[in-house]
Amino acid sequence: MRMYDIIKKKRDGQALCEEEIRFFVEGYTAGEIPDYQAAALCMAIYFCGMSVAETTALTLAMRDSGAVLSLPDMQGVRVDKHSTGGVGDKTSLVVAPIAATLGVKVAKMSGRGLGHTGGTVDKLEAIPGFCTDMTSAEMMRIVDEVGIAIVGQSADLAPADKLLYALRDVTATVDSIPLIASSIMSKKLAADDDCIVLDVKTGSGSFMKRREDSLALAEVMVGIGTRAGKKIRALVTDMDRPLGNAIGNSLEVVEAIETLRGRGPEDLYELCVALATHMLALAGKGNMADCEARVREVIASGAALDTFARMVRAQGGDEAYIYRPEQFAVGKHQKVVFAPQEGYISAVDAEQYGLAALVLGAGRNRKEDCIDHCAGILLQAKTGDFVRAGEPIATLYTDTKPENLDAAERMLLDATAFSAEQPAARPLIFDVVES
Amino acid sequence: MRMYDIIKKKRDGQALCEEEIRFFVEGYTAGEIPDYQAAALCMAIYFCGMSVAETTALTLAMRDSGAVLSLPDMQGVRVDKHSTGGVGDKTSLVVAPIAATLGVKVAKMSGRGLGHTGGTVDKLEAIPGFCTDMTSAEMMRIVDEVGIAIVGQSADLAPADKLLYALRDVTATVDSIPLIASSIMSKKLAADDDCIVLDVKTGSGSFMKRREDSLALAEVMVGIGTRAGKKIRALVTDMDRPLGNAIGNSLEVVEAIETLRGRGPEDLYELCVALATHMLALAGKGNMADCEARVREVIASGAALDTFARMVRAQGGDEAYIYRPEQFAVGKHQKVVFAPQEGYISAVDAEQYGLAALVLGAGRNRKEDCIDHCAGILLQAKTGDFVRAGEPIATLYTDTKPENLDAAERMLLDATAFSAEQPAARPLIFDVVES
Repeated sequence: MRMYDIIKKKRDGQALCEEEIRFFVEGYTAGEIPDYQAAALCMAIYFCGMSVAETTALTLAMRDSGAVLSLPDMQGVRVDKHSTGGVGDKTSLVVAPIAATLGVKVAKMSGRGLGHTGGTVDKLEAIPGFCTDMTSAEMMRIVDEVGIAIVGQSADLAPADKLLYALRDVTATVDSIPLIASSIMSKKLAADDDCIVLDVKTGSGSFMKRREDSLALAEVMVGIGTRAGKKIRALVTDMDRPLGNAIGNSLEVVEAIETLRGRGPEDLYELCVALATHMLALAGKGNMADCEARVREVIASGAALDTFARMVRAQGGDEAYIYRPEQFAVGKHQKVVFAPQEGYISAVDAEQYGLAALVLGAGRNRKEDCIDHCAGILLQAKTGDFVRAGEPIATLYTDTKPENLDAAERMLLDATAFSAEQPAARPLIFDVVES
Repeated sequence: MRMYDIIKKKRDGQALCEEEIRFFVEGYTAGEIPDYQAAALCMAIYFCGMSVAETTALTLAMRDSGAVLSLPDMQGVRVDKHSTGGVGDKTSLVVAPIAATLGVKVAKMSGRGLGHTGGTVDKLEAIPGFCTDMTSAEMMRIVDEVGIAIVGQSADLAPADKLLYALRDVTATVDSIPLIASSIMSKKLAADDDCIVLDVKTGSGSFMKRREDSLALAEVMVGIGTRAGKKIRALVTDMDRPLGNAIGNSLEVVEAIETLRGRGPEDLYELCVALATHMLALAGKGNMADCEARVREVIASGAALDTFARMVRAQGGDEAYIYRPEQFAVGKHQKVVFAPQEGYISAVDAEQYGLAALVLGAGRNRKEDCIDHCAGILLQAKTGDFVRAGEPIATLYTDTKPENLDAAERMLLDATAFSAEQPAARPLIFDVVES
């Protein structure tokens, strides 16, 4: 088998077989296939696509390039939930404790933020003492005890994906549905959960701007998961505006706590209820209506918040912050952003909102950048709201980048459109894709 | 300027500007742009194409990556003729002496053969003593004296093309018209002739199998040459069967000599007359009819053969061989191939004929392979000829690979189709593309 023939076959629009895909992934991971041949293949895939069968073969080969999490002694059904990333997306902090409270196991490996999107691990580290760096044995002990643990992604998971992603990142071959789907799913399958609920974002704050692309990605990922023997479901959800009102790590943890107390913003609350309901239904915990009722109940009763607090304590964090979130430090430097005119907020560029939070210190331009956990944005008005000129629409916070407050204000205002008419309401959930 | 943005722009179907193309070619030649980014760009070009303006910019940037031949003291109009390569294509050996005899200067740099196609330099080296390795000063002295010299391609011509071609060769990005056109034309423009006649082959023995692709390539190359200020013309000519009857280096030299004596096979003779006529007309030596008459005249008179012999002597070769070609050594091992059935030869796979000559020792699989100058094939019957079962259709010759005679016979027979009806005649020249 020659890599040249594999590139040419894909270039000519033919489907690659499993052996060819494994030959590529194994050879590339071993350093035997050079970057330039991998880059040519990625570009050919960009143009010619891959069938679900090919994409599944690529996913499984990348999964098998490294360790697969093995938790044979774990009791109960393990469910994961994964978001393709957005602005203000703190749903994992809410839905994982809810699901664990209702009897499924959530052993979650999460990433860090990059660019305009935040990462669950960064958010949790805003809780004093919270540790996300642990072995799978430590994680298993906590999941057994509390029903949930959220840790950083282990470095030995799907190394082929890491190599290939780094190459795609510098060769303009990131935006390819089969390559995106296999990258996400290789890591998910390496975590080896029983059920997976995917939250595929769509809109200006997502990396998939168009709904049809998000739907296509959702369908491919559900196809891969099904072929790999998983129970899997994907929701295509709105990311044309930030989710909730908080953007930035400690601000988002506080908002997640408020949501677990039943007092969060409506869009965040309802999306979390939907995601948790799907997680439970997929895990066989009842029909959708029953599961939804129980989800709302464990929020109302405070049981889900207690589970979150137990997880925080088990992972070394100070649970007092969970019950008294007013203890979280607030950025020393603040700036209120005022509406420059009267009208409805007709649209926002959510990616720019995310980037404004980044320049305040909440995010990373490069992997090695440090994060200011206090930095971020609290929105006082969102798409669809009516504001008068001079009313506050947002407050900016930063500890470390006060020199960027003006720039962030500018970015926010530039990314906000006003109009005399109220914009049409946009659904929170566009599609549910099942296998 | 970032290479990433250049790749993405091309990937998204936009035209690159001259600055972007120079940035790429200069950066790649300097080793500052890595192979993997160049490979991704080549694949994006494969799918999205390039306009003639872009292709010209790429050609000129590659030309300027190395030395440009400068012959300021040369008197007269310098004309080059270039073939895209085929099987049995010895036209350069015939047309260059004709054109030089009629008053134009031919300072020709030629390549070596690879795969199923032969190279002019290899053929000339079948003449005892002939030297193709000389400086441009030596070449100029010979051209001044004889009107013609044919030497090997200087290594410092268009180094960017050499690098890029080697990369394309291993990344399945060779078959792209803008990349092929710019590769050929960068070397032609570096030779800095006044006029260029291109012989673009089409059919089974050419690397362009389909006539529309060959025509498109011809049009792009004429566009590039015109924009670079050259007088240029391209002929799209038949390579669906070998040209002439001889395949293999000394066999082809002998056939070229016969053609210069007016006794060559008709297809070869007529194509050489056409190419030489276009070279002279392009150089302003008269109208097509006048030029054609003079071409036929210098063949008939033996003047063109004398020019060839003078060039051979000037380049160190033994001119006695030119006047007595029966002196050329013949392959020690021979095998006659007989027609397995009665009928017309309805079609041949000319590439397979070329590869059969290669396995006999006439060609190279890899650049570093050695050549057996005696090896090759003499055809006794070609497409359109009627043969009886058991009649000879070809004779195979080899000095060094007698063990491959049977395989070559098999290849030849497998590549030859017979039918009861005479196949339709195919024109020798399909198109003439002018600027």
